Amino acid sequence: MIINQKPEERLDDLQIKGYKILQNPGRFCFGMDAVLLSAFADVKKNERALDLGTGTGILPILLHAKYKGQHYTGLEIQPESADMARRSVAYNSLEDKIDIVTGDIKEAAEQFGPASFDVITTNPPYMIGEHGLKNEKEALYIARHEALCTLDDVLAQSAKVLKVKGRFYMVHRPFRLPEIMTKMCNYGLEPKRMRLVYPYVDKEPNMVLIEGRKGGNPRMTVEAPLIVYEKDGSYTQELLKLYAGE
Amino acid sequence: MIINQKPEERLDDLQIKGYKILQNPGRFCFGMDAVLLSAFADVKKNERALDLGTGTGILPILLHAKYKGQHYTGLEIQPESADMARRSVAYNSLEDKIDIVTGDIKEAAEQFGPASFDVITTNPPYMIGEHGLKNEKEALYIARHEALCTLDDVLAQSAKVLKVKGRFYMVHRPFRLPEIMTKMCNYGLEPKRMRLVYPYVDKEPNMVLIEGRKGGNPRMTVEAPLIVYEKDGSYTQELLKLYAGE
Repeated sequence: MIINQKPEERLDDLQIKGYKILQNPGRFCFGMDAVLLSAFADVKKNERALDLGTGTGILPILLHAKYKGQHYTGLEIQPESADMARRSVAYNSLEDKIDIVTGDIKEAAEQFGPASFDVITTNPPYMIGEHGLKNEKEALYIARHEALCTLDDVLAQSAKVLKVKGRFYMVHRPFRLPEIMTKMCNYGLEPKRMRLVYPYVDKEPNMVLIEGRKGGNPRMTVEAPLIVYEKDGSYTQELLKLYAGE
Repeated sequence: MIINQKPEERLDDLQIKGYKILQNPGRFCFGMDAVLLSAFADVKKNERALDLGTGTGILPILLHAKYKGQHYTGLEIQPESADMARRSVAYNSLEDKIDIVTGDIKEAAEQFGPASFDVITTNPPYMIGEHGLKNEKEALYIARHEALCTLDDVLAQSAKVLKVKGRFYMVHRPFRLPEIMTKMCNYGLEPKRMRLVYPYVDKEPNMVLIEGRKGGNPRMTVEAPLIVYEKDGSYTQELLKLYAGE
């Protein structure tokens, strides 16, 4: 399979169904957050899913590997990232299952039309505004900071493109939880399920996985803590299982 | 010390500074939630604290035992509970430090005046509305269900009686977190700190401890998980420490 791999790119094995992914360490490489989000989410048979800000395309590829969804779309604003994601999709011969669309999250509803997806996943920029880190490489900066889209943009567009009762899955930082919950409620994406990811059992969580339902009733399930490392620094059994796609 | 203990009442040792408390098992006995809230909260020297819905008076007594606050007030709507709490305060000779006031949370601002406290604690009814359990004893029912006061009442009155930058500490159920956070933000009690209480490390949390600050800036710290039991059912070291007031 010819994918025109560029010198600065890496072709990494995803350890699931033989799929591989192109990454550019100078731009952005996927992290544990993407893997945990793919395990936390669910895409059922006949459902269509959209990943907002797909970057390397990691989420659509992992979701396809793990679930029986009908079709996956990844939306990415940076043309170089979208191109690389598209080549990864081609490398894995998944063009029938996954579309990578170059475009702006802020125009998702315009692009795809209202109520066009059953599921949304998103691993959006965590950091507010544009303070600090200005000398970071631009691609990395955009992936991490709300330079091109804010939490409000992600939620507003998700509420529009999701069908009624559609599910919204996001990974984010716990320090923004009050804002996340308030805004999800305001946009009609009722928070229904949450899991906090704690690096160690006696440390503060550094990620939160959250599921909302469009037009859902209030009542949230908070799941058992997800602990990443044992005291000795090795991965916990549960984390290894999630990585293996079990 | 004569406290006119009634036949249906129990005098229990609080295991801290020799304090005891009257309880009536037919009405309501304090639980782990009150003890964990007293450990999660803080009342500094020269600060005045108000406990909304004080029941047996357990919170003011434990807070006084643990912190150096200047004065504690417990507000309780049920006259029999308020009377029992007052007799517990008298038994411990804490009349100078703790006032038990009979009154309605919904009239707290009227009763105490605006911006009259530095700290609020509350262990409010967890259950919404009046569904089910109608044959429960009335006192117990009122303590557990939002029959006489809702989350909105608690937050609205807290926002009024707290000074600017005053701290609000509440224990509640995780399934109501989206509503709790949204309403705290709406009433200007910005959520600043949260801790989830998990009975076991692999189980869903059954309590949430949350701190808000009146007029605070957005940014919340989520603390390490508080695990109650080891796998063998014995208490964890951390829980034993919190109970001991360490």
